[in-house]
Amino acid sequence: MTTVNDIPGAIAPLDKAAMTRAQQRLDSLVKPPGSMGRLETLAVQLAGIRGSDRPLHFPQKEIVVMAADHGVWQEGVTPSPQAVTAIQANNILRGVAGVNVMAKTAGARVTLVDTGIIGGPVAGALDCHQGQGSANIAVGPAMHRAQAEAIILWSARWVAAQVADGLDLLGVGELGMGNTTPAAAVICAITGQPPEQAVGLGANLPPEQLAHKVAVVQRALDTNQPDAQDGLGVLAAVGGFDLAAMSGAILGAAAAGIPVVLDGYLSYASALAACLIAPAARDYLIPSHTSAERGSQLALAHLQLHPYLDLSLRLGEGSGAALAFTLVDAACAMHNEMATLAECNIQL
Amino acid sequence: MTTVNDIPGAIAPLDKAAMTRAQQRLDSLVKPPGSMGRLETLAVQLAGIRGSDRPLHFPQKEIVVMAADHGVWQEGVTPSPQAVTAIQANNILRGVAGVNVMAKTAGARVTLVDTGIIGGPVAGALDCHQGQGSANIAVGPAMHRAQAEAIILWSARWVAAQVADGLDLLGVGELGMGNTTPAAAVICAITGQPPEQAVGLGANLPPEQLAHKVAVVQRALDTNQPDAQDGLGVLAAVGGFDLAAMSGAILGAAAAGIPVVLDGYLSYASALAACLIAPAARDYLIPSHTSAERGSQLALAHLQLHPYLDLSLRLGEGSGAALAFTLVDAACAMHNEMATLAECNIQL
Repeated sequence: MTTVNDIPGAIAPLDKAAMTRAQQRLDSLVKPPGSMGRLETLAVQLAGIRGSDRPLHFPQKEIVVMAADHGVWQEGVTPSPQAVTAIQANNILRGVAGVNVMAKTAGARVTLVDTGIIGGPVAGALDCHQGQGSANIAVGPAMHRAQAEAIILWSARWVAAQVADGLDLLGVGELGMGNTTPAAAVICAITGQPPEQAVGLGANLPPEQLAHKVAVVQRALDTNQPDAQDGLGVLAAVGGFDLAAMSGAILGAAAAGIPVVLDGYLSYASALAACLIAPAARDYLIPSHTSAERGSQLALAHLQLHPYLDLSLRLGEGSGAALAFTLVDAACAMHNEMATLAECNIQL
Repeated sequence: MTTVNDIPGAIAPLDKAAMTRAQQRLDSLVKPPGSMGRLETLAVQLAGIRGSDRPLHFPQKEIVVMAADHGVWQEGVTPSPQAVTAIQANNILRGVAGVNVMAKTAGARVTLVDTGIIGGPVAGALDCHQGQGSANIAVGPAMHRAQAEAIILWSARWVAAQVADGLDLLGVGELGMGNTTPAAAVICAITGQPPEQAVGLGANLPPEQLAHKVAVVQRALDTNQPDAQDGLGVLAAVGGFDLAAMSGAILGAAAAGIPVVLDGYLSYASALAACLIAPAARDYLIPSHTSAERGSQLALAHLQLHPYLDLSLRLGEGSGAALAFTLVDAACAMHNEMATLAECNIQL
């Protein structure tokens, strides 16, 4: 992959034969057909991605946290001090943040990528540092198109290298003060919905400041006029380094043939852009939780994804993706370990 | 506890001081306040049940599967042969059924109780065997009131003994061909909703036979005239041995001071009856998944419970309860292991 244009051709469609075999096995297990519901659908998807249905295992799991600062923070779109990005990046590196604890529970490792934290490159983080935060989308593009492309390719190649080393299952997360603003702008740009429908309170913005945040997103759209059919262009115009990197990780996972678990609102924005760049990536996506952020349903409807967990999470960092890893394990265990009706000599 | 009337007095209210301390700790962690959503609410509930917030651990987990046959099977309310109850009970005892695999994934053990399987007592099952299935609710009561009371007390005492041996967390499941019919009748009796709203297809009833199942439930209600305020009476009139045993397990868990995770539709019916018998049991309930069975929302609304998992499961056996055990572990890990803002010397 030397340009983003190479990515669509690198993503294989799911293996329909493996999916058929997986469905046949599911229908042969000691349960009424279909009674394990969406866990069965998940197992079939996993079989299609893996290109094999027995055994179905995804033991090596990782959450990648794409971290960056955002010039639009200057517009007063969040009550969180911008310095918290670097501080919380260090907490993730120290293993004491929400994502670390959720990943540990799920048996997953966590990798933090500095894609443009102010004061960075942060020591100990993987270095895809693009500078001291993206530019303010309220007054111009977040970054050059070439920079967005470079981030996507870096991320996709990093995932490919991880998969070459044995990674089975990726989850995407992010960290960046103010980043629900560019995420909302990306969602509006791609879904065509107005900011009133897509902008939420992020990390505890006082409700009386919501209208201001809506106006900032509208200004970003008016100023940059992103093309709704151009995923790379949308990320460069109204996105951010972290969002572009998550899109790249999603595309990289699909190109490398492993499933990728989304987190919340921010990841929906990145997935929308990724699926514009390469629609075939859609089938590699596994939703986790329904984000509490306003506008989540818009993005999910556009992606035709229906999350498994309803926890009103709005932390980010990939914390919700890690929780869904256990559902992947459960789907695999069901598929691999339940007895068949034939083994039990019965028909349900 | 020598009668069911003793149960309400045996259930302590949740420990409000522990819940306050838990909330204070959650608000002190390195995350925006409230950003872990319903996982925070769950941690607070667990602290209130445990009467302590640090550390919050529920390592010894068990799914109890209450199994029974039902006389109403004779009315043609399910396509499953009645012999499948005993056969599947043996599959659960052999460890190869859906609940076994889900429980193993969650680190939980599984216990099967024969509360009245045809051909039983089943060897290897715990014995609360009440006979060759309950009576046909379409023509009379499922059982005598004294029998329902004996089952509830047996189950509650069994849970108490488990808790004395170290059990921390219980999940309830069931097995019994035809048992969505009495469950629907219990739900109608307690919520006051008509059978059209509460009766679903269970384990793959052909849709054209739904009206017949609705009529059977209506006949059970008309024949037995259960009193909507009398949980024990409802279980005896239109319930079943498995449903009464699940109610007893729920009440026993609450009386013994441990949380109890519900499974799907059947467990909702048992929980409704249990909470009529002892309203204080409600605070010990942890929902798991939203059952795909029609009428689930009615029961959940009455219980004021909102499940965490949306998987369209309709297997039963406690399989969905086992899946939610991992959310309990995640809530505890978040509560115990995340760093505090003070430890990180920041304010988010």
